[in-house]
Amino acid sequence: MAKKITPRSKDYSRWYTDVIQQAELADYAPVKGCMVVRPYGYALWENIKDGLDRRFKATGHVNAYFPLFIPMSFLQKEAEHVEGFSPELAVVTYGGGKELEEPLVVRPTSETIIGHMYAQWVRSYRDLPILINQWANVVRWEMRTRLFLRTTEFLWQEGHTVHATYEEAQEETLRMLDVYADFAENDAAIPVIKGRKSESEKFAGADTSYSIEAMMGDKRALQAGTSHNLGQNFARAFEIKYLDQNNELQYGWTTSWGVSWRILGAVVMVHGDDQGLVLPPKLAPYQVVIVPIWRSEDEKAQVLEATGRVKAALTDVRVKVDDREEYSPGWKFNEWEMRGVPLRIEIGPRDVAVGQVVLARRDIAGDKSVVPISELARRVPQMLTVIQADMLERARQFQKENTYQPTTYEELKEAVAKGFALAYWCGDPECEAKVKDETKATTRCIPLDQGGVGPGRCAICGKEATERAIFARAY
Amino acid sequence: MAKKITPRSKDYSRWYTDVIQQAELADYAPVKGCMVVRPYGYALWENIKDGLDRRFKATGHVNAYFPLFIPMSFLQKEAEHVEGFSPELAVVTYGGGKELEEPLVVRPTSETIIGHMYAQWVRSYRDLPILINQWANVVRWEMRTRLFLRTTEFLWQEGHTVHATYEEAQEETLRMLDVYADFAENDAAIPVIKGRKSESEKFAGADTSYSIEAMMGDKRALQAGTSHNLGQNFARAFEIKYLDQNNELQYGWTTSWGVSWRILGAVVMVHGDDQGLVLPPKLAPYQVVIVPIWRSEDEKAQVLEATGRVKAALTDVRVKVDDREEYSPGWKFNEWEMRGVPLRIEIGPRDVAVGQVVLARRDIAGDKSVVPISELARRVPQMLTVIQADMLERARQFQKENTYQPTTYEELKEAVAKGFALAYWCGDPECEAKVKDETKATTRCIPLDQGGVGPGRCAICGKEATERAIFARAY
Repeated sequence: MAKKITPRSKDYSRWYTDVIQQAELADYAPVKGCMVVRPYGYALWENIKDGLDRRFKATGHVNAYFPLFIPMSFLQKEAEHVEGFSPELAVVTYGGGKELEEPLVVRPTSETIIGHMYAQWVRSYRDLPILINQWANVVRWEMRTRLFLRTTEFLWQEGHTVHATYEEAQEETLRMLDVYADFAENDAAIPVIKGRKSESEKFAGADTSYSIEAMMGDKRALQAGTSHNLGQNFARAFEIKYLDQNNELQYGWTTSWGVSWRILGAVVMVHGDDQGLVLPPKLAPYQVVIVPIWRSEDEKAQVLEATGRVKAALTDVRVKVDDREEYSPGWKFNEWEMRGVPLRIEIGPRDVAVGQVVLARRDIAGDKSVVPISELARRVPQMLTVIQADMLERARQFQKENTYQPTTYEELKEAVAKGFALAYWCGDPECEAKVKDETKATTRCIPLDQGGVGPGRCAICGKEATERAIFARAY
Repeated sequence: MAKKITPRSKDYSRWYTDVIQQAELADYAPVKGCMVVRPYGYALWENIKDGLDRRFKATGHVNAYFPLFIPMSFLQKEAEHVEGFSPELAVVTYGGGKELEEPLVVRPTSETIIGHMYAQWVRSYRDLPILINQWANVVRWEMRTRLFLRTTEFLWQEGHTVHATYEEAQEETLRMLDVYADFAENDAAIPVIKGRKSESEKFAGADTSYSIEAMMGDKRALQAGTSHNLGQNFARAFEIKYLDQNNELQYGWTTSWGVSWRILGAVVMVHGDDQGLVLPPKLAPYQVVIVPIWRSEDEKAQVLEATGRVKAALTDVRVKVDDREEYSPGWKFNEWEMRGVPLRIEIGPRDVAVGQVVLARRDIAGDKSVVPISELARRVPQMLTVIQADMLERARQFQKENTYQPTTYEELKEAVAKGFALAYWCGDPECEAKVKDETKATTRCIPLDQGGVGPGRCAICGKEATERAIFARAY
């Protein structure tokens, strides 16, 4: 079965779907809007999970698990929350052959049921902070879906914390935003802009939402993680109260933050090319693929022996040996390029004779080098580090080149047609709505780092503005 | 809040719930039959997952993820399967505010939807075997629930494989049964009996089901894992076909196998005592708790300095230091005993002065030894290994002592009232039903290891019997 990937320039969206299906990351499920994550995609997701989970634990968080089903009445306790999520709910009305007295919602997010439990667990200031994360599936009924980016069911992590003060909750909210940015840049090689969401774009029930925003290969934005300061909204709705040091009852302050498998879609779109996936070494299921090349049985024995030695030397590297007989070396080169393996090692009989191999980088087409076998244990990890850094740098450069700083509405319209617009915005929702209506671009976030510039004039209405926002068309 | 655990002798079932709630493994959820796994319980579950996942990968399996929702029509494709699961289904009838045309079932197990996908992925014998596992939540509407053992929603893993021949499928079925037994005995310190399920107890849709059965502290049985040879039942229902080496179309042979968080309940019941949990070192979230003891500030500084050194020396051990000021050493001893930490290290000022600490084993009441600090890095891992082995051996002894070999129906009735009965059974479902009706004991399994005995007489009807079965009351 010959595999063909639509070129990005021809149809970016088709390219994305082709890459995901042909690299066997995922497949469409026979349930509307749902997806199957295939083993290669799941191995990538496992590495993403590990990278995040390690960071959560290093910042004092623990994992737990809360129920899939939430009584409908729970959602109704927080007015904005239920309004935001009602249109997206999947509802269980029958259980064990009987109609349920109260319908159960399949969790779209878990602030409500976790809030209910926290109200029982928190008694005194000594119980705070509560710093819990869960890895779970959630369901949001989506009209238009796209593999990984927007699916009815998706896998994610959701952190839910309770603090004694506003300040601590705010500190946590920003800490987790930093954790997400650190993961995105250092593990996924995706440069991100950390910022505050506008009122219209914030999470239903939050006081303030923050996000990390990344630029995809087609210059559109993708929100890759969010962190919310929920104020006392859920604490009041669910009665999360604690006795403070003066023995007075206080409401807690809560946060929530989440990253889903959509970040896997971002990895595809930020780094991929017309040959397929390009995976950052830290996340790649296989960091190195070894393709042994032989014609005769004699050659085969020699080459496979050398292959075994090379694999054994690469102790801390995730190595795949592709010694299948039914495919040619050329076919294998294409296959593993399409699957984005960062480094390929080619070993042929002449290489074995002189004790060397050919190393080919996936991220730079045609970049091949010849390395003595005795050097591989040192050189391969080095090259993986270089590839990881280069991928981040290239993505950073791409984002920079395609970010504009329009000062007039005309310039802004031009900018969002071809990339990100970093523009002064007065904060008026009407200006935001106008841009959205006329260009389909939305405010992605108001960057925390404003670049040291002072106040200016709103690029839309010309009124005074204290901050700049990122406007872009988004996934 | 003083914690009290009901003694096992008074009310075993209450003891079990007390231990789980007070050790903060889990809590009841506000949704009927559902449960919240708290951080300490989840850390235990993570270790269980790791132990199993490592073994799955070592036997060539990979992970993937399939959808939560299954079209109702899929379940109906396999007649026995739908009959078995229909009474337990949770059904989504509304999505995105609209009534669905076809109701969606929340997966009770995933043979059907995975079978549907496999039918698309399998083309030729070269694609076989498919060896996929998924970690997921499933839902079965249960009338009477019990924490971890029987909950409406539960976490588990389900392996689903496709093979070219019956023999390979059977080999896989038994391989995974061995993997489960290996995990149960070596990580969970739970001795298990591997065996075949009777026709009436097998999985709905399987040709043959196998299980591992363990004896709990109240001498009842618990099925801790199952492995099914599904024959061609699901391959035919979902059209999983492949071209064989002769280019002829053949149906595949499938297996499925699963372990859920119920095995965590088994860990509680096999090892726990009236003080609470006793956790096997390989699974314990904390293998060692260090309790520093001081009265004056001077002593505190010395003791905490030594505590730091001890913790630093125990590099490959999961160590918790409990240096909280608001609790007394005695309170902490009780707390961590209740939570089942295998080893406690006590460090007081006199210990520091002479360079030693006190080590207390959780599994043997009153077992304390004095060990030089300089020896700890060697002795602690040793003791953990000893504890792990001793726990398995004690559980094995307990199982042996409470397993009887009745030859008459009267003896069998007596045996199942006080433990396991290993008895000849002719295989007639009527004999099985009679035992169940009159004693509530069921056939747990027909052990693969029959102990080298020949044929005998059915303990129930006296007819000829070729095999012995385990009869017991079960969870």
